[in-house]
Amino acid sequence: MTQKEISSAVIERLPRYYRYLDELREEGVERISSAELSRRMRVTASQIRQDLNHFGGFGQQGYGYNVESLYNEIGKILGLDRAQNMIIVGGGRLGQALANYVRFEKRGFRVIGVFDHNPNLVGMQVRQCVIQYVGHLADFLEKHDVEIAALTIPRDEAAEVAKLLVDHGIRAIWNFAHVDLNLLFPDDIVIENVHLSESLMKLSCKLNMERWQSEE
Amino acid sequence: MTQKEISSAVIERLPRYYRYLDELREEGVERISSAELSRRMRVTASQIRQDLNHFGGFGQQGYGYNVESLYNEIGKILGLDRAQNMIIVGGGRLGQALANYVRFEKRGFRVIGVFDHNPNLVGMQVRQCVIQYVGHLADFLEKHDVEIAALTIPRDEAAEVAKLLVDHGIRAIWNFAHVDLNLLFPDDIVIENVHLSESLMKLSCKLNMERWQSEE
Repeated sequence: MTQKEISSAVIERLPRYYRYLDELREEGVERISSAELSRRMRVTASQIRQDLNHFGGFGQQGYGYNVESLYNEIGKILGLDRAQNMIIVGGGRLGQALANYVRFEKRGFRVIGVFDHNPNLVGMQVRQCVIQYVGHLADFLEKHDVEIAALTIPRDEAAEVAKLLVDHGIRAIWNFAHVDLNLLFPDDIVIENVHLSESLMKLSCKLNMERWQSEE
Repeated sequence: MTQKEISSAVIERLPRYYRYLDELREEGVERISSAELSRRMRVTASQIRQDLNHFGGFGQQGYGYNVESLYNEIGKILGLDRAQNMIIVGGGRLGQALANYVRFEKRGFRVIGVFDHNPNLVGMQVRQCVIQYVGHLADFLEKHDVEIAALTIPRDEAAEVAKLLVDHGIRAIWNFAHVDLNLLFPDDIVIENVHLSESLMKLSCKLNMERWQSEE
């Protein structure tokens, strides 16, 4: 099967496989059985075999998986085998945190621009970038090859900025604003949402249920 | 049915319902049909009815849902009907971003302590907190009623800190470290992971597949 036929459920799980394989590499492990990977990841061995068989020929009976080649193959599918330019719109603490995340660089994501409209932030150095005025965004996108934009701005501004980004060639938005941008764009614009307050609410919800149970 | 029987799939969706209901309240909408909510949220009306029927008696034939009461009911299930104390371990930019998030306060989450071991951060004012030395963490937890801890520290330190937190009464961990803490603790410790680099990899993966498709 071709790589594009990988289901979205498998895509959800790939980064976690990638992380575990990276840890195994760091530990110097050269090969691993699906049973051992299952034990580490707490995923059933049959799930692992089913997921990883998508990439064909890497698991061998009696040998297991070659850690390095499986790591590289999954890296390719994740698009990590080449450098990708990224900008961050929203230079507040969250935007700065993303710009400073060395782990992204290690994966080939290069932050080449950070933008904000707040004059107190414009001009601030964040790692290798100086925060620029957001009015320069369109011009910047015309001059640079950028595929990914992280949006770390308030909800009210997100739709308008996202539209500008897409009009200037951005194909992928990493959205931290509390708005469902995917409802605004055609399917070929890729959007990944990180809704922090919803994540915190889920935590609170589960905690709340634990509390009821323990009170019984 | 009792609230604790709500499935984890419904829990995943509840915060989004809550966000849409909040927006409707802000717009002054008093009631809404499942068809109209379906149009807004791009979820099928039958899915909405099925999800919201868990909370019994709120949807009425020919009337729809009372926005305010459904909002309040879901808020209770999410544990947002009371104040919850939270601490943040890791006072870097991400920790500071979380501490500064006014939206959390609005939902009843009060950040009452921020901790770090970096002497350059200790003493810094972040909103209503002063970043404290992480060595004071255990003592702080003995003296204060804290249920939720956000972990915004590197992977290597996460397991040890999490163990200390749980030993001192923390029941819920909002984990930003790239390690699967849920493998370390019994089920009654609630953990919600936000793995930012995995989220970015998913975005990259989807972008990568779009690229293959458009090249065909």
